[in-house]
Amino acid sequence: MKHIPFFNTKIKGSFWGERQDVSKNVTIDAVYDRFKETKRFEALKCNKEQQEKEGWSSHIFWDSDVAKWIEGVAYALEEKRDESLEKRIDDLIDDMCASQLENGYYNCYYNIYNSDKKFAYRMNHELYCLGHLIEAAVAYHHATGKDKLLGLVERYLDLVIRVFVKEDSAQFVTPGHEEIELALVKLYHATGDKKYLELSKFFIDKKGCNEKDKDHYSNWCTAYYFQDQLPVREQTTAEGHSVRAMYLYSAMADIAKEYNDTELQRACERLFENISEKRMYITGGVGSSRIGEAFTVDYDMPNETAYTETCASIGLALFCRRLSELKPDGAFADIAEKAMYNGSISGVSIDGDTFFYENPLTIDLRNHDKNPATKEKERYPITQRVKMFGCSCCPPNILRFVNSIADFLYTDDGKMLYVNQYMNSETAFEGKRIVQKTNYPSDGKVRIETEGYDVVAVRVPSWCDDFTASAQYTMKDGYAYFANDSVIEIDFHIRPQFISSSCIHENTGKVALQYGPIVYCLEGTDNEGDIFSFFADLDTEFEVENSSYFSLPIITCGGYELNNDKELYYPANRRTFTERKLRFIPYYGMENRGETDMIVWLPVK
Amino acid sequence: MKHIPFFNTKIKGSFWGERQDVSKNVTIDAVYDRFKETKRFEALKCNKEQQEKEGWSSHIFWDSDVAKWIEGVAYALEEKRDESLEKRIDDLIDDMCASQLENGYYNCYYNIYNSDKKFAYRMNHELYCLGHLIEAAVAYHHATGKDKLLGLVERYLDLVIRVFVKEDSAQFVTPGHEEIELALVKLYHATGDKKYLELSKFFIDKKGCNEKDKDHYSNWCTAYYFQDQLPVREQTTAEGHSVRAMYLYSAMADIAKEYNDTELQRACERLFENISEKRMYITGGVGSSRIGEAFTVDYDMPNETAYTETCASIGLALFCRRLSELKPDGAFADIAEKAMYNGSISGVSIDGDTFFYENPLTIDLRNHDKNPATKEKERYPITQRVKMFGCSCCPPNILRFVNSIADFLYTDDGKMLYVNQYMNSETAFEGKRIVQKTNYPSDGKVRIETEGYDVVAVRVPSWCDDFTASAQYTMKDGYAYFANDSVIEIDFHIRPQFISSSCIHENTGKVALQYGPIVYCLEGTDNEGDIFSFFADLDTEFEVENSSYFSLPIITCGGYELNNDKELYYPANRRTFTERKLRFIPYYGMENRGETDMIVWLPVK
Repeated sequence: MKHIPFFNTKIKGSFWGERQDVSKNVTIDAVYDRFKETKRFEALKCNKEQQEKEGWSSHIFWDSDVAKWIEGVAYALEEKRDESLEKRIDDLIDDMCASQLENGYYNCYYNIYNSDKKFAYRMNHELYCLGHLIEAAVAYHHATGKDKLLGLVERYLDLVIRVFVKEDSAQFVTPGHEEIELALVKLYHATGDKKYLELSKFFIDKKGCNEKDKDHYSNWCTAYYFQDQLPVREQTTAEGHSVRAMYLYSAMADIAKEYNDTELQRACERLFENISEKRMYITGGVGSSRIGEAFTVDYDMPNETAYTETCASIGLALFCRRLSELKPDGAFADIAEKAMYNGSISGVSIDGDTFFYENPLTIDLRNHDKNPATKEKERYPITQRVKMFGCSCCPPNILRFVNSIADFLYTDDGKMLYVNQYMNSETAFEGKRIVQKTNYPSDGKVRIETEGYDVVAVRVPSWCDDFTASAQYTMKDGYAYFANDSVIEIDFHIRPQFISSSCIHENTGKVALQYGPIVYCLEGTDNEGDIFSFFADLDTEFEVENSSYFSLPIITCGGYELNNDKELYYPANRRTFTERKLRFIPYYGMENRGETDMIVWLPVK
Repeated sequence: MKHIPFFNTKIKGSFWGERQDVSKNVTIDAVYDRFKETKRFEALKCNKEQQEKEGWSSHIFWDSDVAKWIEGVAYALEEKRDESLEKRIDDLIDDMCASQLENGYYNCYYNIYNSDKKFAYRMNHELYCLGHLIEAAVAYHHATGKDKLLGLVERYLDLVIRVFVKEDSAQFVTPGHEEIELALVKLYHATGDKKYLELSKFFIDKKGCNEKDKDHYSNWCTAYYFQDQLPVREQTTAEGHSVRAMYLYSAMADIAKEYNDTELQRACERLFENISEKRMYITGGVGSSRIGEAFTVDYDMPNETAYTETCASIGLALFCRRLSELKPDGAFADIAEKAMYNGSISGVSIDGDTFFYENPLTIDLRNHDKNPATKEKERYPITQRVKMFGCSCCPPNILRFVNSIADFLYTDDGKMLYVNQYMNSETAFEGKRIVQKTNYPSDGKVRIETEGYDVVAVRVPSWCDDFTASAQYTMKDGYAYFANDSVIEIDFHIRPQFISSSCIHENTGKVALQYGPIVYCLEGTDNEGDIFSFFADLDTEFEVENSSYFSLPIITCGGYELNNDKELYYPANRRTFTERKLRFIPYYGMENRGETDMIVWLPVK
């Protein structure tokens, strides 16, 4: 089983088509401009004199930002080459190659600063940067046939293999920020050279099993931070820095598949279960704590301080996509879908040029700057997206994620096709053909036309408890299996549903609104009054209204507002409520129309 | 109108009698022992050589800790002299007097360290310490007739008046930590010397109106921190460090009364309204933020991170008691009562020897130490009382508060008596006599027998909407006025009541249980299962059961538990609940029987 890579698919309008148009027309340039302003491109030249003269210096993780931008652009070039964009990228690659050291090493920081400290600090992102450069090189080569960046990373990897595997001469054994592991599998597929696969497996096998890495723990980051708490095959809970975790687990799934390593596969499945059953927000956000950008304990999902980094939600989707290749279980694509429609794309504005790093589920403006007694502030996530962060990993990650979103559509198993996601699209793959006609998720109707497959297994989303299909099917593990049907019409009957949660203390007695896979929120912008005094009515009728602004429906229903014109504390039997309309928008579209209060979970009357 | 000082009253058993027994039999020694261990007494000798040799040093606020302990003991001595305790105190006073400088100055830190920096740093508690020494001196003199400590503070005050008023030669104009202002009014009453009253008024009048004090603002503490944001007569909102605020407002009420300053009185009333209507927990806790130990904005009452320092709740009661002397409005004693029975005494354990500084309204043990990725912890209030704090202001404050609790009983207006609180007790005052027979608040029956009053005004608590009285009365501003009745039997019909709150976002849809003035909580200790999945049933029947352990009833009622055996997120229409018993204990008694989850507010089904 393998996923059908996105470049075999042409998405045609509808939700993801619109998101991709914005990504290609706006986000590519928006990220480019900010990276240029902040010297991330100039830094590739590794000119220390210039930096000193101009008063700035390159940073240990800047290469990875540039690499992700290149990768995201490369995905756009798959559909349509663009001379001007390629010129920009070729220039960047020229700068990197000109600075690559004799022995293959390249890092825009260590090339010129602390150059005797290469591979000395596990925290310092050298292999993480290389990982992203590999992904960029593979992507750009595939889109354009140009192999200069591929050459750079292959030369660099010869050094890495020598230092880390043959000589064991680095100050650590496995990367402090995982990423290269999954990139190496991509490079193996692109080049066919098994040494890259072996290096990936080496890093994964060594993780949590060696003494040298322990020297890099500190009060600030423990073994858990690095997913080092146990050898990977023994891990049962998602731990530590959530983006690192997601990239590691993705690579574990890759290696499990490549080596048919069932023990590793079982570890991946256990980690998936722990995440999806106990450590994930309804938005597909993961990593609830700002401290260490980390996972904490089961069911700890604070809404207002939710860290849930955009990159972590993207990472969760990437992990799930790989799991779908290991075993035909719809649960994986269910969670990928949750992350795709909610906690990942909430990280970019509707107009594509501003970004969230953190994606909270409650914004209560009253709490921000609330303490005039001191200038030390209680910390909350920012409430409006910004053009750039100091650590600006999320913007180019969103770019590459949206531009390759069709990666999530299908798993191919020869004559058997698994349909994991729904997008209005046409796909051609290894002589086979798939056409989806759908407005999903604005409504739940999907027409799937296939050529070349004997069996088509269509995921029935876990949120759907009532669907109709045009042909006979057999259900198994979340997929409806259709045999010998070249055309399948299915309707998931998407309708608004209030959702409860289990064991999340803050959400007891509360519900969230979902429409298919889309999580909704209430904003002050659309609802007069104090949204924190609103109550859901579980028996309400819903109005679903298309919105071109959000590319998804707006939902209005009846609810209640607690009348707050009482004294501060008063007998509960004097509570009164006023019936009122509640107007919900898709969570991903929150905070796009000015700063306003926002909630996902609201109490039930 | 003046309050009848506690030493005119003998409390006889019942709730406060039992609390006072523990206070006198346990807390006096417990605090003494910890202060001795931590060198707070030794420090009074101001022996720098000794400190250097032994490797410790005295601290700028230690005098205030000792002073509050002396004051608390003095209050116990009012009832019964005790040679051994007096010997301890006399020795401490001897040490202080021996160290008092020629010019009258005394501070166990500045006498020997940075002695050229006296009255240079507004933050450094010199006048705060003197304030507490004044209160101790007045109390000890009243209880024993001994005037040595009184002599010390009077000599010191001559210096303070010269430096602050006559010469204006200190580096600041008004105290950085208010307290001396209210102490000076006490000293004026004890000595009859008006210069002390004038000094108090001087500090109050100058507050927020002078340039010199502004030099002491920093990023950490702004004008608001010190209640400097406006001249006191213009203030409308309770701001800044909550203990400082309470002590200031108390003194403002004193000065308003002494000078018949209606503008100042109106400011006090505005501040009281802001607190009681918008900035106070249901427990009478104030100051919600750990940062600056400060007030924040209206309706900001987070439960789990509630700072609500024990001393602040005590301070609120002290402020309210003074307001009762300004105007016959039951609202003041209502709030004093709230603080007395909840947020203040939650600061001491049932057995009297361990203490809380912070008094949270939710304890969710799951959140403590939840992030293994890092040793940097998310901060929550501690969950078990301890014997001592580095800044150990609360333990001796509780001591003096409980030992003088009868201060809150009555306001006397010649032939008119205001009964503000209810305690089984006998009072003799200026030839008049008052006897209360009651088990309040275990039940609501109070028999009040008076001699020498024409009118007795009995506060009808704001939580009471149904009371019966043995005689005719007229209601006004929260008091039932009885004329010519030497015996009044009143029953406030205390019964369990669920209480709602207004505008507090975290509490929307939730209720708290009250029994008369007592706020209740649910603890894991008494309730199997996850208390965070419990729901209140507003139509339940209650069982009220006396508890000798808590000296107050335990309350059991019906409720619901959300069944959490579902997936993490699931359609709300599949929610199921199990009926169950909920067992509530008085909030003040929380966390006395081992570490356990605790909530005050629970959702309504």
